[in-house]
Amino acid sequence: MIQSRAALFHGTPREVELSQLPLPTLQAGETLARVLGCTLCGSDLHSYEGHRKVPVPTVLGHEIVGEIVAFGKNKSRLDIAGQPLRVGDRVTWAIVASCGECFYCLRGLAQKCLQSVKYGHEPLRPGRELLGGLAEHVLLVAGTSIIRLPNELPLEVACPASCATATVAAALASAGEVCERTVCVLGAGMLGLTAAAMCHARGASAVVCVDMHVDRRERAKAFGATHSVAPNELPAIAKEVSNGHGFDLVLEFTGATAAFENAWPLVRMGGRFVLVGAVFPGAPFSLPLEQMVRRNLTISGVHNYGPEHLIAAVEFLSQHHRHYPFAGLVEAWCPLTAVTEAFEQARNPQAIRIGIKP
Amino acid sequence: MIQSRAALFHGTPREVELSQLPLPTLQAGETLARVLGCTLCGSDLHSYEGHRKVPVPTVLGHEIVGEIVAFGKNKSRLDIAGQPLRVGDRVTWAIVASCGECFYCLRGLAQKCLQSVKYGHEPLRPGRELLGGLAEHVLLVAGTSIIRLPNELPLEVACPASCATATVAAALASAGEVCERTVCVLGAGMLGLTAAAMCHARGASAVVCVDMHVDRRERAKAFGATHSVAPNELPAIAKEVSNGHGFDLVLEFTGATAAFENAWPLVRMGGRFVLVGAVFPGAPFSLPLEQMVRRNLTISGVHNYGPEHLIAAVEFLSQHHRHYPFAGLVEAWCPLTAVTEAFEQARNPQAIRIGIKP
Repeated sequence: MIQSRAALFHGTPREVELSQLPLPTLQAGETLARVLGCTLCGSDLHSYEGHRKVPVPTVLGHEIVGEIVAFGKNKSRLDIAGQPLRVGDRVTWAIVASCGECFYCLRGLAQKCLQSVKYGHEPLRPGRELLGGLAEHVLLVAGTSIIRLPNELPLEVACPASCATATVAAALASAGEVCERTVCVLGAGMLGLTAAAMCHARGASAVVCVDMHVDRRERAKAFGATHSVAPNELPAIAKEVSNGHGFDLVLEFTGATAAFENAWPLVRMGGRFVLVGAVFPGAPFSLPLEQMVRRNLTISGVHNYGPEHLIAAVEFLSQHHRHYPFAGLVEAWCPLTAVTEAFEQARNPQAIRIGIKP
Repeated sequence: MIQSRAALFHGTPREVELSQLPLPTLQAGETLARVLGCTLCGSDLHSYEGHRKVPVPTVLGHEIVGEIVAFGKNKSRLDIAGQPLRVGDRVTWAIVASCGECFYCLRGLAQKCLQSVKYGHEPLRPGRELLGGLAEHVLLVAGTSIIRLPNELPLEVACPASCATATVAAALASAGEVCERTVCVLGAGMLGLTAAAMCHARGASAVVCVDMHVDRRERAKAFGATHSVAPNELPAIAKEVSNGHGFDLVLEFTGATAAFENAWPLVRMGGRFVLVGAVFPGAPFSLPLEQMVRRNLTISGVHNYGPEHLIAAVEFLSQHHRHYPFAGLVEAWCPLTAVTEAFEQARNPQAIRIGIKP
């Protein structure tokens, strides 16, 4: 086999074309993986719908699980957690491959690497066509943070690890203490549900999920939410769970300024906000600097994640995927030949994830 | 002696009355200190000028160095750094005495203790009149974080330790790595100069001080500023010192929203802002949440400090007061009888600190 089937996106909204792309000749430090499954992330959907500018033509898809097919020379045979890597191993990898030497890599921000390769976001280039998950194979370039997956981790649980789960792990790395703390999770989609479960697993004394949709609120209860409320119910619940002091932590996954505004007065002195959802420009928030100071508040923005967060994500899923119904979040698997149907199914806001199995 | 002379503030702007207050009978856990010196902080001045609401009558002054006169029973004879305490020792102490057991104390935010006693900010109460530095004696209540001062630390250097220096130490505790990083310090007053010196001592690769006043910019150079610029010069300098990436860290001490706005675009991805100056309500900042996320930014507000920051402050001053001209920041010492003249001198914006020696 010298070619791999892949779904190409040319930039026309809601059009994806099945195509044959050449399998690469592996260079030093590279790895070839056969795709076992790739779930469609919200950002894939935004690209597909034309709401997000991506360099085209491109192979979308970055929540990928693959099986190692071959190694290029000088490829380290250890994954980022220090486990040995062999042909046939089931692995996932960080969305952003990084050089390890640039300004941002040296500052612990590998996801902003100046030489980055971002899976599912790269335009086709000769010899490196296969950089997205909606294909039979993916080329893992040098600098890719690969991690071996435990055998018992189901495909539907493992696919989102390299996007949703690792991003939430990064958010919690900016969140300070969670054990015996009160946490508010804004938005009960894939990231919010993952955050609720992660905070619950870490021993949060309250996990309050907020969502406008009743069905999403219902689902959150199975993911560790001790309370699951509509936005207008939040002030009363905040008071109740914190004895009037306010939440220790607010995790924002909706991207809506109104959601942040609603939570703003409900955080205790010394509390923290972690922003994840706001990846599109929206209304600015009128930030009172005096309150930042007098209330000793911290606001952190988190975009993507570093290799350490992918390790934490896989560890969390391995230990807890039986305690929370992550496996049920992938509503359907489609073959690569049905990729358009898969995208159309994913457009239904009730669907958390639709997966592709080449 | 059963009385102590003190300067009383009754709330009438620019009026302070010398008075005799009763020396307390020490209760368990309390300490009596004779005041050796107290420098006037900007917030004392704001209170004196009537710009700041304080419970009255009160004894102002919280940047205090004292000598231990007596201990109440069950008073621990160790300071917060674990050094023995004896009568005659020269000490300073945290502005806020805390209970160690309340909601905020248990969350590492002793400065927001629900049972706090705040030196220089308490109204007179029978038996606990002497809680401000503009007096011959101060009652150190139970829960006061006392620290012994090295003998070689001059009074003028040691007085601001418990306010300006410890607050800057708290700001840097929220600031992440400083060594070989580029730092921007907004405002070259007492806190800004201290921050510049502390960042310089920690090995920052650039310390850019920004101030509207040329004389303050000049002074900053002796406190470790590698660059000292007017606000409109900041963008060019930011580019120069960071190879176009932006500052790693911005420390805000002016309290002016415009200063923060000016620095907002000049911080690198993953960079941090620490806000200290904005203790009065001002214009809100239009915070673009998307930039917080995509630039992986963090903004922290810091108000007062915890005991660990006072330890760091005294340690920093002990090690470095000879390298930076802190001693010269106290422009004059006045006796307690000249307290009004001292306040009037302190109103001159050129004066960094005026001190009182009872």
